[in-house]
Amino acid sequence: MDIDTIAAISTPLGEGAIAIVRLSGPDAVSIADRVFHSPNGKKLADVPTHTIHYGQLHDPQTGNVVEEVMVSVMRAPKTFTREDVVEINCHGGLVSVNRVLQLVLNSGARMAEPGEFTKRAFLNGRIDLSQAEAVMDLIRAKTDKAMNVALNQIEGRLSKLIRKLRQEILEVLAHVEVNIDYPEYDDVEEMTHELLLKKSLYVKQEIEKLLRTSQQGKILREGLSTVIIGRPNVGKSSLLNALVHENKAIVTNIPGTTRDVIEEYVNVRGVPLRLVDTAGIRETEDIVERIGVERSRQVLKEADLILLVLNYSEELTPEDEKLFEAAKGMDVIVIVNKTDLPQKIDMERVQKLANNHKIVTTSLLEEQGIDELEEAIASLFFEGSIESQDATYVSNSRHIALLNQALNAINDAIAGVEASMPVDMVQIDLTRTWELLGEIIGDSVHESLINQLFSQFCLGK
Amino acid sequence: MDIDTIAAISTPLGEGAIAIVRLSGPDAVSIADRVFHSPNGKKLADVPTHTIHYGQLHDPQTGNVVEEVMVSVMRAPKTFTREDVVEINCHGGLVSVNRVLQLVLNSGARMAEPGEFTKRAFLNGRIDLSQAEAVMDLIRAKTDKAMNVALNQIEGRLSKLIRKLRQEILEVLAHVEVNIDYPEYDDVEEMTHELLLKKSLYVKQEIEKLLRTSQQGKILREGLSTVIIGRPNVGKSSLLNALVHENKAIVTNIPGTTRDVIEEYVNVRGVPLRLVDTAGIRETEDIVERIGVERSRQVLKEADLILLVLNYSEELTPEDEKLFEAAKGMDVIVIVNKTDLPQKIDMERVQKLANNHKIVTTSLLEEQGIDELEEAIASLFFEGSIESQDATYVSNSRHIALLNQALNAINDAIAGVEASMPVDMVQIDLTRTWELLGEIIGDSVHESLINQLFSQFCLGK
Repeated sequence: MDIDTIAAISTPLGEGAIAIVRLSGPDAVSIADRVFHSPNGKKLADVPTHTIHYGQLHDPQTGNVVEEVMVSVMRAPKTFTREDVVEINCHGGLVSVNRVLQLVLNSGARMAEPGEFTKRAFLNGRIDLSQAEAVMDLIRAKTDKAMNVALNQIEGRLSKLIRKLRQEILEVLAHVEVNIDYPEYDDVEEMTHELLLKKSLYVKQEIEKLLRTSQQGKILREGLSTVIIGRPNVGKSSLLNALVHENKAIVTNIPGTTRDVIEEYVNVRGVPLRLVDTAGIRETEDIVERIGVERSRQVLKEADLILLVLNYSEELTPEDEKLFEAAKGMDVIVIVNKTDLPQKIDMERVQKLANNHKIVTTSLLEEQGIDELEEAIASLFFEGSIESQDATYVSNSRHIALLNQALNAINDAIAGVEASMPVDMVQIDLTRTWELLGEIIGDSVHESLINQLFSQFCLGK
Repeated sequence: MDIDTIAAISTPLGEGAIAIVRLSGPDAVSIADRVFHSPNGKKLADVPTHTIHYGQLHDPQTGNVVEEVMVSVMRAPKTFTREDVVEINCHGGLVSVNRVLQLVLNSGARMAEPGEFTKRAFLNGRIDLSQAEAVMDLIRAKTDKAMNVALNQIEGRLSKLIRKLRQEILEVLAHVEVNIDYPEYDDVEEMTHELLLKKSLYVKQEIEKLLRTSQQGKILREGLSTVIIGRPNVGKSSLLNALVHENKAIVTNIPGTTRDVIEEYVNVRGVPLRLVDTAGIRETEDIVERIGVERSRQVLKEADLILLVLNYSEELTPEDEKLFEAAKGMDVIVIVNKTDLPQKIDMERVQKLANNHKIVTTSLLEEQGIDELEEAIASLFFEGSIESQDATYVSNSRHIALLNQALNAINDAIAGVEASMPVDMVQIDLTRTWELLGEIIGDSVHESLINQLFSQFCLGK
């Protein structure tokens, strides 16, 4: 395990009032002391833990003042990493914070890898893997609900559930072990079968319960990939603007593209819509025209939700019907826009085409129907679910995949019991279930996976 | 004066490990206590100053957990604002930090205006105006040298010089006052004239000394506006890339333009070059072609430095000569590029056209001559000046303007003394000098100016 002292800039890069350079490791305090000068001459080595100190940073080589700072000293074990942690709060700004980082790196600290602070918290046993992953989800959260999911996970609710399931499995395994070791007790075998079935069914049921939360969890975490389609001039751009205007939008770039804006997040009653190719809609009012028919089909296929816009004041066209065709089998909300103009559309035909999908009529020009649309979106994704702050959602793809594998393993175990397979065969499936669940919280994962997981973190966390 | 408690996000916006919400004012601690829950039940009101506390923020209305935080409590007067300050360190990320801000705003804090924390530090007498301005310069500093200038100013070196000058003037004014009050002492008048002249010349000399640093100071602060010109295909784009590649570039957008990149800062041996219209150069290889002849002339006129690129392997063209014409009277470095190809250019003619401007020959393709070019840029702007960390540069346009006005006023005073004008006439000019110098450190400025100055700050500082 690493026992060197690491350092990184822990605040976002940019111009701000305050920036933080964070140090963690056995030499954190002594490295800081090498460069820190308090006006009254005190050394950080002598100060109590969890205290803040004003002073200057001097370059030990030149003696020059590098920055005016506030230094926080937090000693192990009550810290984020369970190691000694020093946080140097300096003036924001790229030059300032880089200079401070350079100074501590020159004074004995090593540049931290992305996620290395959280990795140390994990390796030192302060948090488990699912909690560590939630730290990153929290930073990337786009809505309040997504943040609540991450917060619950940081608090360890998912971990607690997983631990309880693993404990159950372990108890069964121990029981089976006894059975194998003392085959002379006849009734033990019968009891074992009964117990195996009962416990396995319980584990299965709990895994399924967790997996049921995964669709919502994933949507909360990653946003609902939403595409607006419709013929030119039906009001796609107005719809986009109405959604963005009503709800605070967070705009993100997709790295590697030269276009400015490709995704906007809007928070519709707690459902984060990830509006895809908004730049395209804004610029050309037509996603198909812009990105080509083939690519459009791909975008539609990857979407979680399609907002299909029709014109209330025009008759349905073959193009409209084609759009319904393209959106077949997907979650669709049909928006009939321009009710401020005289009706020409055949609503009965629309109803037939919509095929039980929700239809909302709007006049985006007169700001009519937007509430109803938002309601439709929200009820589509939280249908029947009483919203609870306390719910434990599974939102991480890695967790969902592991739960699905664990479900398969426990189903194998159950099938084995039901077919009266030898107990040591069933034992293999149970052990696999136990291991797969362990990977979620990091109790049985390879070092390479750990490294790969943490490398996706942002620097300084 | 405001005595409410203000709050703002003090770290740059973006995804980072840590974000800070800062509170300042008489209720900072009690507002934080309303939402902070320590695992051991302790209240922030009871903790010692300059200590750090782990806990959760709860929404008092719903009781829900909002975030996991570290809270720093710093009590007046040893704080940035000289008021009670609470800093809430939460997980980075837009939703998280906005939720924390919202929570403290709902609990009695008022959203801070841009620069309001620094303004309070100024109004509460912790720093003077020139120091407050330096805080912003520090954040915006693009190079180490610019940061040193700002740091010196924050430490109060400029303030100290200005205060000393004002004290001198005040003593003279007091002496003059005596002279006016007791005109019966004959020799006092003569002495007064002598003293007035001596002291006024001293003040003049000191102001001039400060103004001599202003060109370099301004360049250090704002960067040297640099334009690369040359015919198509002489290597402008390669030159730009070489400068950016060798030196870490900071790219900035100019607000209000739709183009992605318009300025890049590169730090050439301590001289910050602000490369103008780099997007233009990269895209079309020709600034003139891109932005039109009229606009190009304007850009050239506003430039501090022109890098004029010629082709070593081609004969000089009338266009080349026109470029020399356009750059007349400006700081120019002539770059003769492509020495890897056979010479066709008439170097004697180039020398004549360059008219004492420095000429550097390069082969950017073979990375030859770049060091020499950087040396030429550095020596052009730090020529003869022994570089000293200790130098007090005047870098702020407002300060430079006030020093120029003060110089005029003191010159008027000297002319008055020399023309044996009545002492009370000279007194007016001296008082004006004293007031103008006072405006630099904020001793005699209007509230509207103060508000305007601080409104240019970033939020949370």
